[in-house]
Amino acid sequence: MTVRINRDRLWSTLVELKEIGAYDDAATGLRGVRRLALTDADAEARRRCVAWMVEAGLRVRVDRIGNVYATRPGRDPSLPCVLMGSHIDTVATGGAFDGTLGVLGGIEVMRTLNDAGIETLRDIEVGFFTEEEGVRFGTDMLGSAVTAGRIPLDHAHKLTDADGKTVADELVRIGFDGDAHERRPVPHAYIECHIEQGPILADAGVDIGIVEGVQSISWQRLTLRGEAAHAGTTPISARHDAGLVAALVVVEARRMCDSGEFGQLRATVGNFTLGEGQTNVVPHEATITLDLRNPDDALMTAAEQHIAAYVASTATHHGVTAAWERMAKTAVVPFDTGIQDLLAATAEDLGLPYVRAMSGAGHDAQEIAAICPTAMVFVAGENGGISHTPREYSTPTACANGTDVLANAVLRLANQPQSGAGAII
Amino acid sequence: MTVRINRDRLWSTLVELKEIGAYDDAATGLRGVRRLALTDADAEARRRCVAWMVEAGLRVRVDRIGNVYATRPGRDPSLPCVLMGSHIDTVATGGAFDGTLGVLGGIEVMRTLNDAGIETLRDIEVGFFTEEEGVRFGTDMLGSAVTAGRIPLDHAHKLTDADGKTVADELVRIGFDGDAHERRPVPHAYIECHIEQGPILADAGVDIGIVEGVQSISWQRLTLRGEAAHAGTTPISARHDAGLVAALVVVEARRMCDSGEFGQLRATVGNFTLGEGQTNVVPHEATITLDLRNPDDALMTAAEQHIAAYVASTATHHGVTAAWERMAKTAVVPFDTGIQDLLAATAEDLGLPYVRAMSGAGHDAQEIAAICPTAMVFVAGENGGISHTPREYSTPTACANGTDVLANAVLRLANQPQSGAGAII
Repeated sequence: MTVRINRDRLWSTLVELKEIGAYDDAATGLRGVRRLALTDADAEARRRCVAWMVEAGLRVRVDRIGNVYATRPGRDPSLPCVLMGSHIDTVATGGAFDGTLGVLGGIEVMRTLNDAGIETLRDIEVGFFTEEEGVRFGTDMLGSAVTAGRIPLDHAHKLTDADGKTVADELVRIGFDGDAHERRPVPHAYIECHIEQGPILADAGVDIGIVEGVQSISWQRLTLRGEAAHAGTTPISARHDAGLVAALVVVEARRMCDSGEFGQLRATVGNFTLGEGQTNVVPHEATITLDLRNPDDALMTAAEQHIAAYVASTATHHGVTAAWERMAKTAVVPFDTGIQDLLAATAEDLGLPYVRAMSGAGHDAQEIAAICPTAMVFVAGENGGISHTPREYSTPTACANGTDVLANAVLRLANQPQSGAGAII
Repeated sequence: MTVRINRDRLWSTLVELKEIGAYDDAATGLRGVRRLALTDADAEARRRCVAWMVEAGLRVRVDRIGNVYATRPGRDPSLPCVLMGSHIDTVATGGAFDGTLGVLGGIEVMRTLNDAGIETLRDIEVGFFTEEEGVRFGTDMLGSAVTAGRIPLDHAHKLTDADGKTVADELVRIGFDGDAHERRPVPHAYIECHIEQGPILADAGVDIGIVEGVQSISWQRLTLRGEAAHAGTTPISARHDAGLVAALVVVEARRMCDSGEFGQLRATVGNFTLGEGQTNVVPHEATITLDLRNPDDALMTAAEQHIAAYVASTATHHGVTAAWERMAKTAVVPFDTGIQDLLAATAEDLGLPYVRAMSGAGHDAQEIAAICPTAMVFVAGENGGISHTPREYSTPTACANGTDVLANAVLRLANQPQSGAGAII
């Protein structure tokens, strides 16, 4: 049995939700979305989604961290459900697809099953998680991390935004302080449909990606301290140039990526500041951030060790001191191979070409993977897959194709009888 | 005939003038000097210097850009005079020696000649020039550049400070709007005694430097524009990383200095900024400044051409655009070799070891060199010759030794009969 979602209906909900939190973006001249977690705009978008869920005949509940779930009952409610979901909060300069596609796609799957009069063995749920972006309260994947037990509810409730407002108070203020337990019943499986936010699918000429997992992420801040000196009078050999050492680190990080020594390492220096910054003064202080990504934990460790040794020897050579500060570190999260294979078989049945790839970005799915078999469907983006900007765009066809894969994979999972862990297909 | 200046008297004037414009510097915990040009503090220091000049029996005049000259008459006032001088304005975080030493040293030379009852053939003058630092009105060497004819008086008068106050109005306000013509009678020779502001003399273990000239200075701003991209999802090969190209330029500039290909090139990148700066975003824009110094004009040109070609090819390779903006450029100013040799002979006669070196910093002498034979005496500084900070310090002995060289060289020049240009000794 194969179902097809209603493409126009899916697109119309994407267009409608885009207007909640919309703003005119000066940098791009485009209309963007600014819907930070637990703001008035987020609250309005939440109410709209809940209304759509109710219209689709779903039972809605809200948990204590503000995650929202909507259930379509199966024949045997005692069996673990199949869960779809993602998030509807955005960054400050966001687009209409990041997160939203997986939520509205999930709601569309429910309507499609309703239209076709299809009953399933298991319950199916669609949900959205609180503060995935981490832009407002500083911790990304917040709602899903609380659900998975990685972050305690109390800790999450006490997080504050730039104005000192807490998550707990803001949940109350917008009316999404639910009473369902945040450690929800363990699902049979979780599938998240999400835009790729990168160019791999477009480069391969396909709409669909089957995600093998989320790569390891390492964020560090490096502060180098040398000595200020007159640019005109100080001999080169007498300099302790903190900016030069920082530049050497940028160049070495790129060389490490190009060399292949560290597998598919990606390194990015997105911040580079020099103390006061004066044209005719050798810089006494430089601070950079180093973002490393690697789909292999051992190669990530090797890369971190290599750059640490490089910094130590280079700083010493130039008479500069170096101090590292750890900002973030996550290990590789591999997704369930059974669900990946199910997604691949589904895409083949639908005649949709796909590629398999690791995710470079973090997603709620990496948290939920800790409690149940999990995988993701990626949808190709235009403009090199650019995201977190109003330029973010995926075609109606790509969005619909991704949601078709989601619908049929969920339908198969929802008809699986009880089974042991890992025996998904 | 050899004279020796009064060391304690010189030092006491340095200590006394330091209190005019003194402030407590939070960064160093030291007492610094903040005596920006044509401020109340500068006016008070000017009046103090004029009082000392008058006490020494000198005739004082002020010209239309506020430069002050004091004359000790010789036997033949029809002959061009020998001029000493420097400046008494400071940067906002200045010390007690930069500029001031050459002015107070010149006054001390006058007193020493008086004490010894020495008459000279030519007039001797000591002066100080307006706004050498360029901190208040934005143009350094202002008074000496007007005197040399490089900057028209009208243009100089109309320059404004950050509050919109003009040079002309401030000269009137502090009572230093003199009526002497700014294009003064051409001197026989000009000697400026100044602290080195670098480590060369201290490293050589000498108090005295004989300055061969001021090296060429090139300031440029380079703006690189690439494309923002997600640090996790964008393959290395698909990046247009403006920050990486900027870092490569920093590293190449240093390599150029170390290679020796461009002589005694010194390169400094004192500013390095990345658009918004986000840890997980490939930087779309980078701006750096490049300060190049070279004692050889041809090698400076070669260095500028090399880095321009390097930037062009590197930017193209990474799909980044590059735009250069010229901030400043001065050619090498060679000082008169006759006066240099006279200074060397004088130092030898006094038993004072010295080294010859180019100046890395700009000085009034580079302007006056356009109208008469000119050279400089450098005095060693402590702490690596650090300057433009309250840490700036030269020992009483070093200051006195430098002023002894000045005194005896001026005495010899002031007794030279009329001669053709360039026939100083």
